[in-house]
Amino acid sequence: MYVKKITKLILIVATLAISIVVQAQEHPNLILTKDGVEKIRKNLGKVPLFDATVESVKKTVDKEIAAGIDTPIPKDFSGGYTHYRHKQNFIIAQKAGVLYQILEDDKYAIYVRDMLLQYEAMYKDLPLHPQERSYARGKLFWQSLNDSNWLVYMSQAYDTVYNFLTEEQREKLENNLFRPFADFISLENPAFYNRVHNHSTWGNAAVGMIGLVMEDEELIQRALYGIEDDGLPIGGIDNDGGTIKVEDQKKGFLANLDDPFSPDGYYTEGPYYQRYAMYPFLIFALAMENVRPDLKVLQHKDNVLLKGVDALLNLSDADGEFFPLNDGQKGMSYYTASLVTAVDIAYHYGDQDPKLLSVAEKQNQVLLDQSGLDVAIAIRDGKAKPFTKTSVNLSDGINGKQGGVGVLRYGNEDLTLVFKYAAQGLSHGHYDKLSYSLYEKGDEILQDYGLSRFVNIGQKGGGNYLKENKTWAKTTIAHNTLAQNGEMHFGGSYKVASTEHSDLYLFDATKNNVQVVSATEVNAYPGTKMHRTMALIKDQHFEKAFMLDIMKVQSDTKNEYDFPFYYMGQVINGNFKWESPTNLEPLGAKNGYQHLYLEGKGKPTTNNTKFSWLGNGKFYTLTSVAEESDELLLTRIGANDPEFNLRRDAGFMVRRKAKDTTFVSIIEPHGSYSPVSEASLNSSSNIADLKIVKDNDEYTAVSITDLKGNKQLFILSNKDASSSEKHSLKINGKKYNWVGPYYYK
Amino acid sequence: MYVKKITKLILIVATLAISIVVQAQEHPNLILTKDGVEKIRKNLGKVPLFDATVESVKKTVDKEIAAGIDTPIPKDFSGGYTHYRHKQNFIIAQKAGVLYQILEDDKYAIYVRDMLLQYEAMYKDLPLHPQERSYARGKLFWQSLNDSNWLVYMSQAYDTVYNFLTEEQREKLENNLFRPFADFISLENPAFYNRVHNHSTWGNAAVGMIGLVMEDEELIQRALYGIEDDGLPIGGIDNDGGTIKVEDQKKGFLANLDDPFSPDGYYTEGPYYQRYAMYPFLIFALAMENVRPDLKVLQHKDNVLLKGVDALLNLSDADGEFFPLNDGQKGMSYYTASLVTAVDIAYHYGDQDPKLLSVAEKQNQVLLDQSGLDVAIAIRDGKAKPFTKTSVNLSDGINGKQGGVGVLRYGNEDLTLVFKYAAQGLSHGHYDKLSYSLYEKGDEILQDYGLSRFVNIGQKGGGNYLKENKTWAKTTIAHNTLAQNGEMHFGGSYKVASTEHSDLYLFDATKNNVQVVSATEVNAYPGTKMHRTMALIKDQHFEKAFMLDIMKVQSDTKNEYDFPFYYMGQVINGNFKWESPTNLEPLGAKNGYQHLYLEGKGKPTTNNTKFSWLGNGKFYTLTSVAEESDELLLTRIGANDPEFNLRRDAGFMVRRKAKDTTFVSIIEPHGSYSPVSEASLNSSSNIADLKIVKDNDEYTAVSITDLKGNKQLFILSNKDASSSEKHSLKINGKKYNWVGPYYYK
Repeated sequence: MYVKKITKLILIVATLAISIVVQAQEHPNLILTKDGVEKIRKNLGKVPLFDATVESVKKTVDKEIAAGIDTPIPKDFSGGYTHYRHKQNFIIAQKAGVLYQILEDDKYAIYVRDMLLQYEAMYKDLPLHPQERSYARGKLFWQSLNDSNWLVYMSQAYDTVYNFLTEEQREKLENNLFRPFADFISLENPAFYNRVHNHSTWGNAAVGMIGLVMEDEELIQRALYGIEDDGLPIGGIDNDGGTIKVEDQKKGFLANLDDPFSPDGYYTEGPYYQRYAMYPFLIFALAMENVRPDLKVLQHKDNVLLKGVDALLNLSDADGEFFPLNDGQKGMSYYTASLVTAVDIAYHYGDQDPKLLSVAEKQNQVLLDQSGLDVAIAIRDGKAKPFTKTSVNLSDGINGKQGGVGVLRYGNEDLTLVFKYAAQGLSHGHYDKLSYSLYEKGDEILQDYGLSRFVNIGQKGGGNYLKENKTWAKTTIAHNTLAQNGEMHFGGSYKVASTEHSDLYLFDATKNNVQVVSATEVNAYPGTKMHRTMALIKDQHFEKAFMLDIMKVQSDTKNEYDFPFYYMGQVINGNFKWESPTNLEPLGAKNGYQHLYLEGKGKPTTNNTKFSWLGNGKFYTLTSVAEESDELLLTRIGANDPEFNLRRDAGFMVRRKAKDTTFVSIIEPHGSYSPVSEASLNSSSNIADLKIVKDNDEYTAVSITDLKGNKQLFILSNKDASSSEKHSLKINGKKYNWVGPYYYK
Repeated sequence: MYVKKITKLILIVATLAISIVVQAQEHPNLILTKDGVEKIRKNLGKVPLFDATVESVKKTVDKEIAAGIDTPIPKDFSGGYTHYRHKQNFIIAQKAGVLYQILEDDKYAIYVRDMLLQYEAMYKDLPLHPQERSYARGKLFWQSLNDSNWLVYMSQAYDTVYNFLTEEQREKLENNLFRPFADFISLENPAFYNRVHNHSTWGNAAVGMIGLVMEDEELIQRALYGIEDDGLPIGGIDNDGGTIKVEDQKKGFLANLDDPFSPDGYYTEGPYYQRYAMYPFLIFALAMENVRPDLKVLQHKDNVLLKGVDALLNLSDADGEFFPLNDGQKGMSYYTASLVTAVDIAYHYGDQDPKLLSVAEKQNQVLLDQSGLDVAIAIRDGKAKPFTKTSVNLSDGINGKQGGVGVLRYGNEDLTLVFKYAAQGLSHGHYDKLSYSLYEKGDEILQDYGLSRFVNIGQKGGGNYLKENKTWAKTTIAHNTLAQNGEMHFGGSYKVASTEHSDLYLFDATKNNVQVVSATEVNAYPGTKMHRTMALIKDQHFEKAFMLDIMKVQSDTKNEYDFPFYYMGQVINGNFKWESPTNLEPLGAKNGYQHLYLEGKGKPTTNNTKFSWLGNGKFYTLTSVAEESDELLLTRIGANDPEFNLRRDAGFMVRRKAKDTTFVSIIEPHGSYSPVSEASLNSSSNIADLKIVKDNDEYTAVSITDLKGNKQLFILSNKDASSSEKHSLKINGKKYNWVGPYYYK
C-alpha cells in the first residue's frame, strides 16, 4: 500500500505538471480528436459504410430534434417512459455532438446545449428517484447505474460542443450539473461505486470521463483508484444478492480491469455482462489513451481489453449470439451497439486484424470516430477476411487460475460445445459447475436457460430481474449438470460459491476430429468429486460430429443424482416405456425443482437409454449408458409460475441412486426434416451400443458401436493429463498403447 | 346420364379416329415436346435460372446414378427406407429422362431404362405391400396413393426415353409393368380410384398419363371418367374417416376438377391438399394439352386450374407459407416442388402474369420444360413484377355457393386475417366454422393449429396421421371460434358436417383502412345462430392496424360458450387476477378438452378484459368486452398426450354462460422488443375502453376509445348487407346516418 500511494502521488504530480504545461486542452479530445475529425471530414462521401452510418445516425437525430427536447421528472422503472426518455436523451445527445463535429451544422450543437442546460436547471433540486428498489438509487433513473450510463454519454456530448458553449455556460454546467452528478454517483453512492463489479465500472468510467473533459484531476484519480475511504462496513448485499464490501476491497477502474478479466480476456460475469461492461471499459480507456496516453490504461494488464473483445466474439454462436452463461439474455449478440464500439476500437488500436472487419461488415455500421473511419476504409478497400471461429479455452480469474470456459467447435460451427468450469462469476453467477450447452450452427441442441428477466419490459417486474431468476435460472437443476440429493451446488450459498472454482484437467483441440475438454469439481458437493470429460468427435462412420460426455462421480456417501438434458425440440421417440400422468405435479419443493412438472416417468429397458427429438429441422438422439435402477424423467419448466415468467421448455433427466457412478452419454445430431419437401432423412441414431468397458481410478474407457458393427474406443486417463505420458492398458484381453491423456480409435 | 354416355361415345370414336390418322405419336410429347426440347437446347447457356436448374438437377441425378439403382422389396411405412427409396427413384427417373432430352447424354436414358426394367422384373410377382393400415394398399408403397405418385412420374420418364428403348423393351414394360400397374391402382382399387378426393386425382392422372404415352384409349377414358361400374357398395370409410362411396358418386379426373374446385379456384380440402393435388391436376392437364388439346382439359371449368394457382398463392403468408386450414402442415410453402410446376405452367399457359415471375425468382428454380424455359427467359429479360398480395374472398363449393375463405390484408401483409366460413372440406376438414387465424407478416399472432402428424417421420406413427389429429386438431375447441357446451360443431359428425356450410354475409375490402368480412353459421349447433364479423382497421390514432371481432350469438337455449384465443408468444400481463393451480388437470374429458391443461383461472375486474403477450419481438394485446360472470381461462395444449405428439402451445379462453350474447374483441398489435438493443417500445395497449353501445337484431354498435380519449364507432347492420341501403340510427341521443352495411368513424 505504501508503494502504491507513493506511485499515485508521483502520478498526480506528474499529471498536474503536464496539465500546467498544456494549459487548456483542445476539444474535442475525449473520443473524437481534432485530427480525427479533420480526417473524417476529408473522407466524407468516400467511404460507403461510414457515410451510411452518418446518414442513418443523422436520420435518427434529426427525428429527435424535430420532436423536441423532453426531460421529464423521473418516475418510472426501466420499462417506463421517463426511463426510456432519459436513456434516449443521452444516446441522442452523444450522437448529435458527433454530428456537430463531422457535419459542422450548429443545429446539433444547439440541441446538445439546450438539453444539457435543461438538465442543469433540473438537476440541482432533483431528489432521489422515487422508485426505492435499488441498493443505490439514482436521480434521473431508479439506480445509480443508469445515472452513470447517462454521464458516460453526456461527457462525450459535452466534449464535442465544449468550444461551442460560452465560458459562462460551461461553468454553469460543470458547477451545477456535472461535478455534483459525478460526486453523487461516487461519493454519495460508494456501495455502488467502490466495488469490483460492472456497476462500478460504469460509475468509474463516468466520473473519469467527465473528469477528463473538465480537466478535474481529483475526479480522474477517483475514477482510476476509487474512493480511498468509503466508510462502508464490510458486508451488505445488492439487489442481485452480490456482496457489496469484502475485506481488502479493491476499487476503481484499474481494479475493475485487473480483477474480473482473466489474462485471456474472459470476464468472470460472463459474456452478457462483458458485452455490457465493454462499453465503459473501452470508451474510458480510449478517452485515457487520447487525453493521458502516458497512463497506458488501454494497454493495461497486457492489453487485456483488446483480448477481451476477441474473447467475447468467440463466446458467440454461429449467428453471433452470445452464449447465455450465468445471467445472460438470449438473443443478445455482436450486433449490439457496444460491440460496434468494441470491434472498431479493437481493430484500430489493436493489430488491425482483418477478421474483425467481416464482423464490422455484418454489423453494417461503424463508430463515428477515427476508429470507425479506419474500419470503414479498410472494408471499402477489400481487406475484410472471414471471422472463422475455432475452439478456444478461456481461463477465468485474475491470474487465469480459477477454472474457465472451454468452447469446442467442429467444422464451420456445425457443432459447438460450451463447457463451463469457471468461478462463480460474481453476483450474476449460476450454480452450474461443469455445465454445458450445445449448438448446431445458431440453433441450441441442449440449452443453457439463461436469465429470467424481460429486460426493459415494464410490465414484467419493472423490467428487472424476476424472482424466478433466483428460484429457477440460477439453480443447479436448471442446467445440464449433476445435481445431488436435490440440492444446489454449494448449498446455493453465494458466499461459499464465491470462494471456489472448478479446475481444468485437460483441453486439447489440436486434432480436428477428436477434441476434448475435461475438468473436475470437488467443492460443489463436499465429499463428492465430479470429473467431466466432453469430446466432439467426427467419426468416419457417422454422418455428423457427435458429442461424447463422461461424467465420473465419486462420493463418500450414497446419493441421489439427477442428470438432466434440456433438449430443444419436440420428442420423436425413446427406447423405453414411460408413464405419463394425467395430472401434472411439480417434481419437488425447492432448489428449482418446484418449477419442473413431471410429464413422464420410466425405466430403462436395455443397456442404453435412447431418446430422440426434432429441433429446427434436425434430428438429435441421446444415447446414454443405462443402469437398471435408473429412473428416466420427462420434465417441463413452468410449475409454480403464475405470472408465466418462465418458458415452457422441456427436459429429460436420468435419476440414479449410487455412491460412485459414471454417466456416459452421446448427443448425436443426425439427418434433417423439411416441411417444404417433407423429406425426412436419416431420422434414426447410428449407435447400436454404447458401453463402459473399463472404469477405475486410472482409466475410463467407452466403446461406441455403430449400426454396421464398427466399434470405436475412447479411453481417458483419469489421473495424468500430460501430453507426453505413455499409457498401456488391457481391455477384454486386448492391449492398447498410446501417448497422452486420451485414446480414440 | 344418357346424354353423357352418348357424348363419351362420340369422343371415343373421334379420338380413335385421330389416333388412326396420326398413327404413331412422336416422343417426347407428354410434358416435354419435340419443339420444346429443341428450343431448350438452343437456349442452353443463355438463360441463367434455367441453366442453374439444369446444373442443380444434374448434380442430384449424377449423384444418384453414381450410387447405383436400388429397387428394394417394399416393406416400410412412409418414414422408412424402402418408402424413401422408391419415392426417390421415381423423382430421379423423371429428372434423368428430362436431362437425357436436354443434354442428349445416353447415360441418363440408360439409367431410366435399367431402373424401369428392374421394376418390370420385380412387379409381376409383387404381392400387396406388407403394411396393412391403408384402406387401399399399394404394392410398391403402403397405399395406392403412393403407387400412383410413382406412375405419374414414371410415365414422364418413360415418355422421355421412349425412342431410346427397343420395341421389345417397350412391349415388355408396357405389358408387364405399366398396364398391370395402371389396372391395379384403378380396377383393383376402385375405393381409391373412383372418388372425388385428392387420392383419386393422383390415381386418375397416373392412369391417364401412362395411357397417353402408350396411346391406350381405354386408360385415357378411365382417367377422365373413372370406372363405369366399380361394384362398390354405398358407404365405407377410408383411413381418414372420409366416406368412400356416396349416392350418385362422381368419378374420374374431370369430376375431380369440377367438384372440389370453386369457380374462384379454391380447393375445398384447403391449401395444403391443394398444393398436393395441384401437381397431378396440372401435369395431367398439361399432358392432355400436349397430346389431346382438342379435349381442353387444361381450360376445363373456365380455366379453374389456372385460377387455382392464383388462389393457392393468395392462401399464403408473407413468407409464402400456406395457411394451415383443415389438415395442413405448417411450414409447407410455395417453395415446394409442386408449386414450381404450378407457377411455371400458370405463367406459360395463362396470361403471362409478370407477378408470377417474382414468385419463380424466389423459388430459384424452374421446370425443365418449355414453360420453365419461358419463365426463366422472362426473368432474365427483367419482366418480373412484385407479387403483392391483397385482400381476397374465395368462394367454396362446386358453384361457389358453399361459403368460402376471406383473407383480409392490411399494408404489405403487415396484418393478415384468414377467416374461414367454408364447407367441411371432405375428410381433411376441421370442425371450425367461423374460425380464423391472424398474422403479422410471416408470424402467427393467433394460430390455426394445423394437423397433428409428422409427415414421413417414421417413428411418429409411421409418418401417418396421429390419433391426436382427430382427438385434438380437428376439434372445435382447438380453433379460434365458438364452442358450445363443450361440444364440437355438428356433434363432430362428418356426415352431418359434410352437408352444411357457413354463409357469407359481407365482404368489403374496397377501403384500405377499414376492411370487413362477415358470415353466419346456423347449423353447427342447431338452435344457435352465430354471426361473426371481423374487420381490419387502421385508425390514425393507432400505431398499427388492429382487428375487430364481433361474434353475435343467438340461441334458443342457455348455453356455456367457450371462446378461445390461441395466441403465440409469452404472457406479458393481464388486467385481471388469476389463480394458477400447483397441479395441472385437463380441462375436460372429450372433444379436445382432454388435451388442454388449465394453467390459470380468473374473473374480469373491469368492463374490459385485457391480455397481452410478446411474440417474435412484437407486442399484442387482446381487449375484450367483459361480462361480470365471465370465467377467464389460461390453457396449454398437451394433456393426455403421452407420446408428445402435440405442441405445448398456450391459449386464452373466455367462458360465458348465456343465451344470446355478443363477444366483442380487438386484437391490437403494438410496439416491438429487441433482445439486441433491449429497447422495449410501445409495450402497452392504446385502448382505454371497448364498449358495446347498441346490440339488437338490426344493429350492433361498438365504440373504441383510445388512451387520449379519441372515440371511434363501428356499427354493423345485422340484417341488410346491401351496399346501397341507407341507414339511420340513434345511439345515446346522437343520430348516425350512413349508406351500406357498416359505419366506421
